[in-house]
Amino acid sequence: MLTLFTYNWQVRKEWFQWCRSISNEELNRQRTGGMGTILRTLAHIIDVEYSWIRAIQGKADVEINLDSYYTIEKVEELSRCYHGDVLGYLNLPSFEEGNDMVEPAWMGGRQYNVDRILNHLIAHEIHHIGQLSIWARELGIEPVSASLIDRVL
Amino acid sequence: MLTLFTYNWQVRKEWFQWCRSISNEELNRQRTGGMGTILRTLAHIIDVEYSWIRAIQGKADVEINLDSYYTIEKVEELSRCYHGDVLGYLNLPSFEEGNDMVEPAWMGGRQYNVDRILNHLIAHEIHHIGQLSIWARELGIEPVSASLIDRVL
Repeated sequence: MLTLFTYNWQVRKEWFQWCRSISNEELNRQRTGGMGTILRTLAHIIDVEYSWIRAIQGKADVEINLDSYYTIEKVEELSRCYHGDVLGYLNLPSFEEGNDMVEPAWMGGRQYNVDRILNHLIAHEIHHIGQLSIWARELGIEPVSASLIDRVL
Repeated sequence: MLTLFTYNWQVRKEWFQWCRSISNEELNRQRTGGMGTILRTLAHIIDVEYSWIRAIQGKADVEINLDSYYTIEKVEELSRCYHGDVLGYLNLPSFEEGNDMVEPAWMGGRQYNVDRILNHLIAHEIHHIGQLSIWARELGIEPVSASLIDRVL
């Protein structure tokens, strides 16, 4: 399971790099689907991952305003700021056990086991990255490769 | 790992259902990114999954022409036709061991372990489904939900 998180973080980093060659106007341009812009979609991925990891740890949710992340530098800073905590949790030897029940504040009292939450986070990020790849093609620019098979992970 | 395959197959089935409410012309309309049309992208997901599973099993690749799957019925039939073999393999008690090396005919002599291939297949399908979700929104139609968290898997 950690392989798929590592894959996601690597692809995410390559998208940050990709964004650095795109104008800020394009990164904030309203598009159809996803979270509406490239930067909002990236910030959303980061926010969702962190919120669920904090919920697993029994910590309070940290709400952010996606519109505050209107430059790629701000999005990268958000990712960097949260990443240590996320990685710290996923590197715990206990993390793959996955049977503890978690009740996130924003899910109306529903409970989920850790394994399900981690699978949700993996799928969530890959799905949104697929959306970015269409927007990139619509911009006429090659997207970051999503292929896992030949990556050094 | 089987959870993410089950998730993908469930989402795929819901996309088949979604496609049944869309005209064949729209399903075959040329779009930007992915495999160029909704039906070609779905057929590609199915084809890639089957090709890799056959490679793991040491079986010869079965090449298909994506353009032959020009109705949702044909795409569904392809998925159904392959699914028994794929599921049969993934339900083997040995499948999670994952350290055998596989040399697919189409990868220029490179070798991969089973675990990497299975992760590749999971990410591959989710990524392309993310692309379909943008095309759905561009059509003005709500896509299939990609959320894993509340699914009965």
